[in-house]
Amino acid sequence: MEFKEELRKYKNEIEEELEKYIRKDACPERVLNESIEYSLMAGGKRLRPILILATYKLFKQDIEKCMPFAIAIEMVHNFSLIHDDLPGIDNDDFRHGKLTNHKKYNEATAILAGDALLNQAYIVISKAMLKTENKYELELKIKAFNEFSIAVDRMIAGEYVDTEFEGKDISSEYLEYNYNNKTGALLRLCVRMGVILANAKEEDLNKLTSYAEKIGLAFQIKDDLLSVEGDELITGKPVGNDEERGKCTYISKYGLDESKTVLKNLIEDAVKIAEGYGEKAEFLKELALYIMNRNK
Amino acid sequence: MEFKEELRKYKNEIEEELEKYIRKDACPERVLNESIEYSLMAGGKRLRPILILATYKLFKQDIEKCMPFAIAIEMVHNFSLIHDDLPGIDNDDFRHGKLTNHKKYNEATAILAGDALLNQAYIVISKAMLKTENKYELELKIKAFNEFSIAVDRMIAGEYVDTEFEGKDISSEYLEYNYNNKTGALLRLCVRMGVILANAKEEDLNKLTSYAEKIGLAFQIKDDLLSVEGDELITGKPVGNDEERGKCTYISKYGLDESKTVLKNLIEDAVKIAEGYGEKAEFLKELALYIMNRNK
Repeated sequence: MEFKEELRKYKNEIEEELEKYIRKDACPERVLNESIEYSLMAGGKRLRPILILATYKLFKQDIEKCMPFAIAIEMVHNFSLIHDDLPGIDNDDFRHGKLTNHKKYNEATAILAGDALLNQAYIVISKAMLKTENKYELELKIKAFNEFSIAVDRMIAGEYVDTEFEGKDISSEYLEYNYNNKTGALLRLCVRMGVILANAKEEDLNKLTSYAEKIGLAFQIKDDLLSVEGDELITGKPVGNDEERGKCTYISKYGLDESKTVLKNLIEDAVKIAEGYGEKAEFLKELALYIMNRNK
Repeated sequence: MEFKEELRKYKNEIEEELEKYIRKDACPERVLNESIEYSLMAGGKRLRPILILATYKLFKQDIEKCMPFAIAIEMVHNFSLIHDDLPGIDNDDFRHGKLTNHKKYNEATAILAGDALLNQAYIVISKAMLKTENKYELELKIKAFNEFSIAVDRMIAGEYVDTEFEGKDISSEYLEYNYNNKTGALLRLCVRMGVILANAKEEDLNKLTSYAEKIGLAFQIKDDLLSVEGDELITGKPVGNDEERGKCTYISKYGLDESKTVLKNLIEDAVKIAEGYGEKAEFLKELALYIMNRNK
């Protein structure tokens, strides 16, 4: 299957599954649920759940076993977007070219929608555990659950560091810390959960964690580049946004050329790791290239 | 042991345990961790964790087995307080007679501190599971984890309904829904987790859930009463706050006298359930009376 086609197939699969978790009952908190649906179904790339599924498929084919974790990670990702956009944090009006949650609804709704989504991720995980009878499989899920909760903690810490140091020229050490946590932690988690749930070898866990760390940093550098050179109509975010805020980014720290070189090297490394798995890792290889070449 | 002494003993036990989870490392998110400590150690009643432990002790004495869930519930409770106080929701400046998290730090910190606390609760639960080798015990913990995540969802929904209908005269059905979710869900959860983790009988689960539902509604009515008749210096919250906001409460709906009668009846019912367990439930009986008679 061609990469783009496979990507679309994965995306559809995930969106179909996500739809099952959307609550549409006529309850008193109906508008809260609507606002959650608004953000969750706003058309993101679904990169994180795709990454779990694709990693899992290197080893096993019964992806329904890791689907709940894929759904949970997408919920957490969307929680983080809703809260990051809040007036008290980034104060963004648009996301994916649509009004942000608090602009479409209101601040209280956006805060609580984010809270509910973060928590719903754990409902999904707990239900997957309730359904698991095999003790061995259960142990893998508990391990994944533990890594999940720790990675989310790192993501929140990264967002905090991002906020606290906005407008300040931070050390490269801090910038790396920020990137590794804010974006890196979840992408790393996705790959690790895929490996853990498939019960692959420790060696695979190490290799693929390295793949994840490389595409994670690359993803963030590419985001920085899109913020400078991207097409507003495609990215859905205003160009020059980071600069305007005095955000310390890879580009403001190392310049455009150096940033592009680092991005290229990271992706080359990631591609090499994927190539080590041969034909069956073709998708992960293409995914790394896609992260570098995407225009949104 | 006298009730007040036992209450204090529980409180100290929980606070000692909570202290172990406070992060004090010199990391980039140090201030975020400080703000979490500020709210978590602000001197709440610790009613929720006490309720888990006391219920568990009706059946078993090794309370260390349910301590992680007690800690997790206190984290979730504090997350909800931090977010409820935010300018976008209740916009409160004081809590427990101290500045609220966003007043002491700032809004971004308070949003992320709340997020981190909610998530940390799940780190604690996942670690407790990782350490559990006995399959049977693990199943009880998974059941507790599932109920935990669902109750938190209900709490968030309740808070949303509270926010959406502020200043509106809502039906008694909606008011009950709000109370059952916003405050009731967590208190009910505490008791149920105590019973579930102790692996008590279904009959006990039903009886004690009823006890919890009664003290839960009583707790909220008492809160409403304190908002009208309480001593600001003791409650740490301004008197007449609810009325000023046009909040629909039990009192605005049914009047002072009727509210007091309902409170008294609920507590009498709860006391009767506790009495059914004889001497060993003396603490739960006194706890119900304490909820009615407290002055903060």
